[in-house]
Amino acid sequence: MKKLINHVDSVLAESLDGFAAAHADIVTLGAERQFVRRRQLKPGKVALISGGGSGHEPLHAGFVGHGMLDAACPGQVFNSPTPDQMLAAAQAVDGGAGVLFIVKNYSGDTMNFQMAAEMLDVANATVLVNDDVAVENSTYTTGRRGVAGTLIVERIVGAAAERGDTLAQLKALGDAVNQATASMGVALTSCTVPAAGKPTFQLAGDEMEMGVGIHGEPGRRRVKLACADEIAAELVGAILKELAPKPGQQVILLVNGYGGTPSLELYLMVNAARKVLGAAGVEVARHLTGSYVTSLDMAGCSITVTAIDATWLPLWDAPLHTAALRWNA
Amino acid sequence: MKKLINHVDSVLAESLDGFAAAHADIVTLGAERQFVRRRQLKPGKVALISGGGSGHEPLHAGFVGHGMLDAACPGQVFNSPTPDQMLAAAQAVDGGAGVLFIVKNYSGDTMNFQMAAEMLDVANATVLVNDDVAVENSTYTTGRRGVAGTLIVERIVGAAAERGDTLAQLKALGDAVNQATASMGVALTSCTVPAAGKPTFQLAGDEMEMGVGIHGEPGRRRVKLACADEIAAELVGAILKELAPKPGQQVILLVNGYGGTPSLELYLMVNAARKVLGAAGVEVARHLTGSYVTSLDMAGCSITVTAIDATWLPLWDAPLHTAALRWNA
Repeated sequence: MKKLINHVDSVLAESLDGFAAAHADIVTLGAERQFVRRRQLKPGKVALISGGGSGHEPLHAGFVGHGMLDAACPGQVFNSPTPDQMLAAAQAVDGGAGVLFIVKNYSGDTMNFQMAAEMLDVANATVLVNDDVAVENSTYTTGRRGVAGTLIVERIVGAAAERGDTLAQLKALGDAVNQATASMGVALTSCTVPAAGKPTFQLAGDEMEMGVGIHGEPGRRRVKLACADEIAAELVGAILKELAPKPGQQVILLVNGYGGTPSLELYLMVNAARKVLGAAGVEVARHLTGSYVTSLDMAGCSITVTAIDATWLPLWDAPLHTAALRWNA
Repeated sequence: MKKLINHVDSVLAESLDGFAAAHADIVTLGAERQFVRRRQLKPGKVALISGGGSGHEPLHAGFVGHGMLDAACPGQVFNSPTPDQMLAAAQAVDGGAGVLFIVKNYSGDTMNFQMAAEMLDVANATVLVNDDVAVENSTYTTGRRGVAGTLIVERIVGAAAERGDTLAQLKALGDAVNQATASMGVALTSCTVPAAGKPTFQLAGDEMEMGVGIHGEPGRRRVKLACADEIAAELVGAILKELAPKPGQQVILLVNGYGGTPSLELYLMVNAARKVLGAAGVEVARHLTGSYVTSLDMAGCSITVTAIDATWLPLWDAPLHTAALRWNA
């Protein structure tokens, strides 16, 4: 295993310390590194909290800041954070208007966030994200997995929270954005979990995993390596089948790298995805391209499409100031 | 070779098309994709132009926009752009105040930019960046290589150009920032050039290349894999030896991924580098962390330190609006 680390048991702690130091103007670390929270809280605003296993950086800590999350709870690599972490985060960032949890659909995460929600002595609600159209039920889930679409939900709901929407409004908006969002990915290589020390799965030199999950879990099928246009056709095809957009539908297109994929290839995939969307009469109103919801060092990418309501574009464009995403702020 | 591509001979063109479409609010592509230029030019401003081989994305096209470059000329992967491209770019973005070329020190680039400078019928100057302290002379250079410090030069000089500095002032500032900037990197794996179809070099499972160049060219020596703290001690040690900062010196710290390195590890390296800088009494005034000057899919990182003059910090912080970097704008 080749990684820039010291000890496998301190990877997360050391990385969080570096992150908090590098972005001290935006975030601060909770006691015992239980959570990353926004440095400047906004009283009277609904607090948005997410979290999940680490190894998907910048998700979620990189999205803490003005216009997105108030706190993120990092679990160990590919392991859910504990209810204690979520409770501590909620108590730290509650602004008196309630707490909205945004949770990717994995059994460990949903169970722990549910426990935290039950213990929390503050009005709260949960948006469950399950945007991955690759498979129903899977290694770690009942139902669909929550993947890169989580970023879209966090951003749009985060902007609405910033303007003062209520907990009930944000819960409804989050559910609606999740419903309008679909994703699917492909892996060219496995990832390697530090504590495991070896690749999570084996792919031959001429194979790829179509529909892979963000922990390297199996997708739809193992297939021969295909070219970018063929990959885009399958990924976007599955997404369009789910969303069934009318011609002229405006969308946000997120082409997301898994951690080991260079920018040169991601933009080539943007070009490939745009051809498929264009042929379907869909209009890309906003792009986001980069490695935002990763799977450690895995090579490959996912494509996410959100069919936007006309009222969502101003929320997407609203001032945003986080470690990983920043615009108009 | 596993890459998200269609044909090896169209990688650059398709990637540029995706890039230009995704960032159409900021950039536009020149005819025959000779250059990427800022969509909105500012008459009367010195035009800043950079360029070089592709495969280092987001450098340079990702840094075209307000507060940084006016144009970038992309060569094929790891190959210099041609003088024709540089001339076409200069003619497209010249605002009447002259043209400053910012060139990484590689023989092909310096020769071609020099030819363009001689043919150009507009006042011009060149800043040569050679921040890599790993080696004197190397595979593709006479003298030191220009690497991730180029980003720092482009940003600080870009901000000064925006406020209206003259060509002579910008040339002097660029040279000064280059002098105050030092970098060194380490590779854990090779990169793979699409047209070659196989790794540029071979590293055993327990080896790394200390002082590697951004084309995978040799560095100081091949060594056994070391932990993050040891790597940071060597990289930052070599940088501090060069810069010889006094205690209390303020610096910009750039921890840069080579394309195949996840964010989790880069922030761990930030933490490791800060410990070495702190022990030397150096104060990190600004951080930048991410994969900005890459070597295709290579795993590893470089560290860049710029010892800042008090007048440079406002330039670093000034409004910036490019595809890859955006703040206060």
